[in-house]
Amino acid sequence: MLAEIITIGDEILIGQIVDTNSAFIGAELNKIGVKVLQITSIQDESSQILDALAQANDRVDLVLLTGGLGPTKDDITKAMFLEYFNDTLIENHTVLAHIHDIFKTHLKRDPLPSNLTQAMVPSKASILRNAHGTAPGMWMEKNNTVFVSMPGVPFEMKALLKNEVLPRVKVKFKRPHIYHKTLLTFGQGESQIQERITAWEEALPEYIKLAYLPSFGSVRLRLSSTGVDKIKVEYAVNKQMLLLSEILQDIAIGYEDETSLVGRISEILVEKGHTLSVVESCTGGSIAKSITAIAGASSYFKGGLIPYSTALKTEILKVDSRLIEKHTVVSIEVACAMAENSRDLFKSDYGLATTGVAGPAKGDTNKEVGTVCIAIAGPRGVMVEEFSLGDHRERVIAKAHNKALEMLLKELSKN
Amino acid sequence: MLAEIITIGDEILIGQIVDTNSAFIGAELNKIGVKVLQITSIQDESSQILDALAQANDRVDLVLLTGGLGPTKDDITKAMFLEYFNDTLIENHTVLAHIHDIFKTHLKRDPLPSNLTQAMVPSKASILRNAHGTAPGMWMEKNNTVFVSMPGVPFEMKALLKNEVLPRVKVKFKRPHIYHKTLLTFGQGESQIQERITAWEEALPEYIKLAYLPSFGSVRLRLSSTGVDKIKVEYAVNKQMLLLSEILQDIAIGYEDETSLVGRISEILVEKGHTLSVVESCTGGSIAKSITAIAGASSYFKGGLIPYSTALKTEILKVDSRLIEKHTVVSIEVACAMAENSRDLFKSDYGLATTGVAGPAKGDTNKEVGTVCIAIAGPRGVMVEEFSLGDHRERVIAKAHNKALEMLLKELSKN
Repeated sequence: MLAEIITIGDEILIGQIVDTNSAFIGAELNKIGVKVLQITSIQDESSQILDALAQANDRVDLVLLTGGLGPTKDDITKAMFLEYFNDTLIENHTVLAHIHDIFKTHLKRDPLPSNLTQAMVPSKASILRNAHGTAPGMWMEKNNTVFVSMPGVPFEMKALLKNEVLPRVKVKFKRPHIYHKTLLTFGQGESQIQERITAWEEALPEYIKLAYLPSFGSVRLRLSSTGVDKIKVEYAVNKQMLLLSEILQDIAIGYEDETSLVGRISEILVEKGHTLSVVESCTGGSIAKSITAIAGASSYFKGGLIPYSTALKTEILKVDSRLIEKHTVVSIEVACAMAENSRDLFKSDYGLATTGVAGPAKGDTNKEVGTVCIAIAGPRGVMVEEFSLGDHRERVIAKAHNKALEMLLKELSKN
Repeated sequence: MLAEIITIGDEILIGQIVDTNSAFIGAELNKIGVKVLQITSIQDESSQILDALAQANDRVDLVLLTGGLGPTKDDITKAMFLEYFNDTLIENHTVLAHIHDIFKTHLKRDPLPSNLTQAMVPSKASILRNAHGTAPGMWMEKNNTVFVSMPGVPFEMKALLKNEVLPRVKVKFKRPHIYHKTLLTFGQGESQIQERITAWEEALPEYIKLAYLPSFGSVRLRLSSTGVDKIKVEYAVNKQMLLLSEILQDIAIGYEDETSLVGRISEILVEKGHTLSVVESCTGGSIAKSITAIAGASSYFKGGLIPYSTALKTEILKVDSRLIEKHTVVSIEVACAMAENSRDLFKSDYGLATTGVAGPAKGDTNKEVGTVCIAIAGPRGVMVEEFSLGDHRERVIAKAHNKALEMLLKELSKN
């Protein structure tokens, strides 16, 4: 069965916001065997919404819409549903009670008339509970296609999708099993990898699809297959993945399934009972941010320091100022000292340190923009590497962030 | 004139990546007066790509495509261009020389045969230089519609769009002037705001469009207009915006134009010659990450500390342990002490501190999950607030991050 995601809102088309809803919905549908054929983003304009609904009706079995359900005049999705399904509004008492409850319990003020109009819903719609907001979801059908309208606020949409929409989709539609497995590699480009795996790729059965996903310094290789028999599908993909991992064993660092790089780091630290601290000069907090995004991080993450000026590296982190004078602040030597001293300062088993020139200016060093030194100090000593990561600030920071986490995972994975 | 953005790649549809390219392209086109009618994301499948090209041809004057230009077998956009434009490949010597140069200068190895095939391009295409990669952009025309194919790697696409595509679009198409201005407000919901501005909204001229953009704790109000006369369009929007700001003066914190919240904070700090440090407990580095993303941050950002355990707040930050015992670590009092001590530790004019319970566990406090205290210490004293930000970790962190930056901007904006 096929689905289409339609996101509604001028702010998406003028680039004022990035549409993250579609990726979330796509991933959730994929997990339950629904193939997303297309994602369409359109403006809050009546003719465009009606056209998009009609076109999606021709293409797919399930259409999930987000956005345009707010209480203000610029939101017109509900009115378009009325027109497309030739329907009228009725008051839904459950929604009305829910709105009153949200205002009483959470907002602690009386709802305005515009808030109460959220309880007026199309008479033919099945109404889906929006636990975190006042605009309910709406499930309607036409010509054998199901249309579901959800709010555009990501937090509200996510809960509504998971608790209300997906369970109904599972009952309504027969779906095949879709399975993906992704190998993470780093150190070689996609054409180098393709050359190495040519023979394997040519022998790959037609029902397994290979995709190359290059990003900063790493390439992810995704195998996908679809079928009615879950066990057969997964077996076929895993068998090929094993062969692939063997060919690329020198550059493979693991699989990406549900967990991210930082998720696997978290698992290992919890499992081994080890703790971590970070000292981020050029990465400016981005590594700490990723680590602390994981629930339960406080059990292994001791803390972080962002010594954004050279003086702080000597004063708070106690890096020997002669070492900095001799080697400059962006050096293998200073990175090692930072990582080691991080262990002392934060009393952690592992210390991760980054120092580099993110650019565009060079700062307190004579090193080229893009030079980044990353060190990891742990019970087994210090590992350190110097990288040259280009001359674009955002990219240097993102690359250094990824390299640091890759090095950390590598170090933690050793016995 | 109208445009459509088509992004190609299974990874978008299965939600493996978030499509950020579309927002970037949308914002750039909007700046030069090109209206994006639709964004379409489709799979690397020949029939879908051909259908999307044909449909876009009917709808718009300009089609910008990203993705599917890699050297590997799963990338088929170039082959689809050949089919759609009924064209054949020729070797382009400029591209070939560029590929050799990239390998020689940056990658320091010989190109593989698959890399060299990137120099084979459709004979009817105008070729656009991809400064940062080997896959060139392609500009082709059919039935009065221009189609431009660009690589999907954001860094390569951005430079190619700015340096090669937009200048050609400006020459090729007559465009009206599009102008947006966005007011940032915080403290009230969209229905409350709508109620307050009803009279103004009803008197708004038809050619000015109002949009409500709610996000965590804040609502942005965007006014948009389009016309041939730049001065008239901007004057009309600015006039209405002044009226709107006056009505909402108690909740308005400024305009969002090209600059973000953190961008404006940066401007004020540079202008006043003041410095900043942050101590992030519950926000775990996310504020420092935003601040250091701005080029030149090292001139005013002294550094940050992420004291992720209570012990570190007393040991490194020297917060009085009796204060913590008396009020618990998540309290107005401790937040104030953290912000003040941050000024001392980092020798900065301003110190920003966050302490809270991001959840799901409560940690070293008896406070409810979602309780966050934020303090800003500066030359004029300390401002502090306690918030209740819900029970969803990601959302608590994001909200606390936004609240902290809003408070900081408010404090910095005072004379």
